[in-house]
Amino acid sequence: MSMHELARQVKESSLKLAAAGSELKNKALAQIAASLNGRQDEIIMANLADLERSKQENLAAPLLKRLFFNEAKIADAVDGINSLIGLDDPVGRTLLSTELDEGLELYKVTCPIGVIGVIFESRPDALVQIATLCLKSGNGVLLKGGAEAKETNRILAEVIVDAAAAAGIPANWAALLETRAEVSDMLKMDRYFDLIIPRGSNEFVRYIMDNSAIPVLGHADGICHCYVDAGADLEMALQIVVDSKTQYVAVCNATETLLVHEKIAPQFLPLLQRAMDEKKVELVGCPRTQVLIPVAPASEDDWKTEYLDYKLSIKVVSGLNEAVAHINKYGSGHTDTIITAEKERAARFMEYVDSGNVFWNCSTRFSDGFRYGFGAEVGIGTGKIHARGPVGLDGLVIYKYKLLGCGHVVEEYADRRKTFKHRNMHKEFSL
Amino acid sequence: MSMHELARQVKESSLKLAAAGSELKNKALAQIAASLNGRQDEIIMANLADLERSKQENLAAPLLKRLFFNEAKIADAVDGINSLIGLDDPVGRTLLSTELDEGLELYKVTCPIGVIGVIFESRPDALVQIATLCLKSGNGVLLKGGAEAKETNRILAEVIVDAAAAAGIPANWAALLETRAEVSDMLKMDRYFDLIIPRGSNEFVRYIMDNSAIPVLGHADGICHCYVDAGADLEMALQIVVDSKTQYVAVCNATETLLVHEKIAPQFLPLLQRAMDEKKVELVGCPRTQVLIPVAPASEDDWKTEYLDYKLSIKVVSGLNEAVAHINKYGSGHTDTIITAEKERAARFMEYVDSGNVFWNCSTRFSDGFRYGFGAEVGIGTGKIHARGPVGLDGLVIYKYKLLGCGHVVEEYADRRKTFKHRNMHKEFSL
Repeated sequence: MSMHELARQVKESSLKLAAAGSELKNKALAQIAASLNGRQDEIIMANLADLERSKQENLAAPLLKRLFFNEAKIADAVDGINSLIGLDDPVGRTLLSTELDEGLELYKVTCPIGVIGVIFESRPDALVQIATLCLKSGNGVLLKGGAEAKETNRILAEVIVDAAAAAGIPANWAALLETRAEVSDMLKMDRYFDLIIPRGSNEFVRYIMDNSAIPVLGHADGICHCYVDAGADLEMALQIVVDSKTQYVAVCNATETLLVHEKIAPQFLPLLQRAMDEKKVELVGCPRTQVLIPVAPASEDDWKTEYLDYKLSIKVVSGLNEAVAHINKYGSGHTDTIITAEKERAARFMEYVDSGNVFWNCSTRFSDGFRYGFGAEVGIGTGKIHARGPVGLDGLVIYKYKLLGCGHVVEEYADRRKTFKHRNMHKEFSL
Repeated sequence: MSMHELARQVKESSLKLAAAGSELKNKALAQIAASLNGRQDEIIMANLADLERSKQENLAAPLLKRLFFNEAKIADAVDGINSLIGLDDPVGRTLLSTELDEGLELYKVTCPIGVIGVIFESRPDALVQIATLCLKSGNGVLLKGGAEAKETNRILAEVIVDAAAAAGIPANWAALLETRAEVSDMLKMDRYFDLIIPRGSNEFVRYIMDNSAIPVLGHADGICHCYVDAGADLEMALQIVVDSKTQYVAVCNATETLLVHEKIAPQFLPLLQRAMDEKKVELVGCPRTQVLIPVAPASEDDWKTEYLDYKLSIKVVSGLNEAVAHINKYGSGHTDTIITAEKERAARFMEYVDSGNVFWNCSTRFSDGFRYGFGAEVGIGTGKIHARGPVGLDGLVIYKYKLLGCGHVVEEYADRRKTFKHRNMHKEFSL
């Protein structure tokens, strides 16, 4: 089938899926969970084939680890689907209800976005997560996974599509893409695709943005900061910085830069160095840091770098304003935390730092859809439009305005025979 | 000043403006309203100069009319500002509050988007409307108006910036652009601009989308439809179609295509023709229409054309499904209305038509920010992301997640010493 025809079919089905009720969608999700369990052996066999081939092709060990999809991973995916079933349907919520005039009622009601193109990394669990989030939110989806996981992705897509169809979901709401050429085609089809979600490196997300007129929900780097304010509890600050930097270094919500108030730096930095040495974290610092602890100099580039590694850059600042300015200049709008005992200073930090997630006295690592209680996430947005921060079901819907009249025409308002009331009805939409 | 420096300053100021309270913003709006009144003479003189020059340059009459900005228009603008003052602050609303665990509270709080670039048509009232909407929503803004209104725009921008500064709004939150080169520069500065709102022709909006990585909130055509269902009240249907088509033809929410159920077409179309003849509307129709009334044939192109004129294309359809399919194929996702006596059929139409505004028994011309009670609109979006339909203050904000802890680290949850509660607190954010 041509990519054009495939996209057309998914678009057409998505319009039907948009009208599917919560019960049907949840039934399909339960069916998918059951099929993942029932077809476990096929899935594990397919994954073994991917692992075998990838080993022969000398795929790097961390990538092999991500590719691995066994019984436990299937159980995790099933757990995820079950919690998704328990979440409220994001579609059909009334966001606004206004009586414009007698018998003329306006409702703003959530609805699916339409068709979403998702390009994701090697982890096969991502396919299950994204496809089921799209189903729950009533969106059609085209999925492109990593080539190294092709057998696993193929069987997973088959399981999902078959199970959904068996439950009564319109056919063709989801499909798997397998070639880069198909992705290139997709980026040009703004007629069929309403949103692209690329998950992968920074350069990759950038490439997608520069090569498509379709809106993109993606994140740039995660250059996250911890700012230790004057008068912070030293023990708490140490705990939070250590967790933010080292709990898992290869992820976007790990901290890359530590900012320290000049008043607390002489006490705090030696403690920090000891803790970081234990965790084998390489430190680089500004000249004022170097006066206090023996570290290599940080370059201008260090402030802009997402290490994703056991490395931390440190800057001593003259106060809250300089910390905020540094974050707004060098940060990536992802997640930044202040450690301070003073409420007013925490409030100022959270007000002025222009990031999607601004924290007080806790680790940047909390910035995550599961931890936020969203069930799962399709990604973390660092843009300022539509959705930012961890994006769950809410980011997969938009709304439409429904206006109910009984013969109302504008002419009567234009010539002032009638005037608008604009009364908030606080009412759910129903007919 | 270089465009780069100008954009940098507006960005910097926008971060301060984001933290401005409702009272300060409303005070500034009141000051702007007072200054527009106080400096009326200067504004009218500047507008006369624009009109004079534009006449000499043979500007078309409709454009001259749009350019005209007199005492009455100033009074309208002042009225608009006063109603804007009365609207709730869109910033600082708590959208979600979740207790993640004891002492660890997550809040999703609305905040301004940042810096918005707006490119608008010749009407000087658009400048006042957009600038004040941005101020109320805490956004920095760069404004580019039509060259024909340059003197009027210059004095209006001066009045707004001066009055806001006098009220205590950070300087440089708004500025006027005057050249196309500046606009080209702006489109490349995704570091400083968070959103571009182009108001103008379809080709123009398309050009902006194709030439910038900055998100664009704009609308394509307004190809709106009226669908007259079998069993519709003939009188009501006639009223609505006439209003939708002729109340004001040169606007995006005017209807371009009429779809009629085959069962009602023999009675309805002759009545319609008589009414349209009276209004001097040219009709074109499908072959089945031509059997019923003497009209010229509609071509494939007619279904895709935004006439913005006294012209209507007509198609007889076999039923609701064909009407919906036609709208989803040829429409532009703007506004479509069904005229029917049957609730279930209205519900189906509104569910399946993939447009931002779906109406039952009322005119497509209601699709408008003022009529919806939004105070004003920055534009009407036909995209599926962030905001669609008439976009008022709500479309100018996004949110940030604020997480308050007391030393919480992820490690304790990763090793299962602690588990998340995810309890909805139904609580406003405050510190």
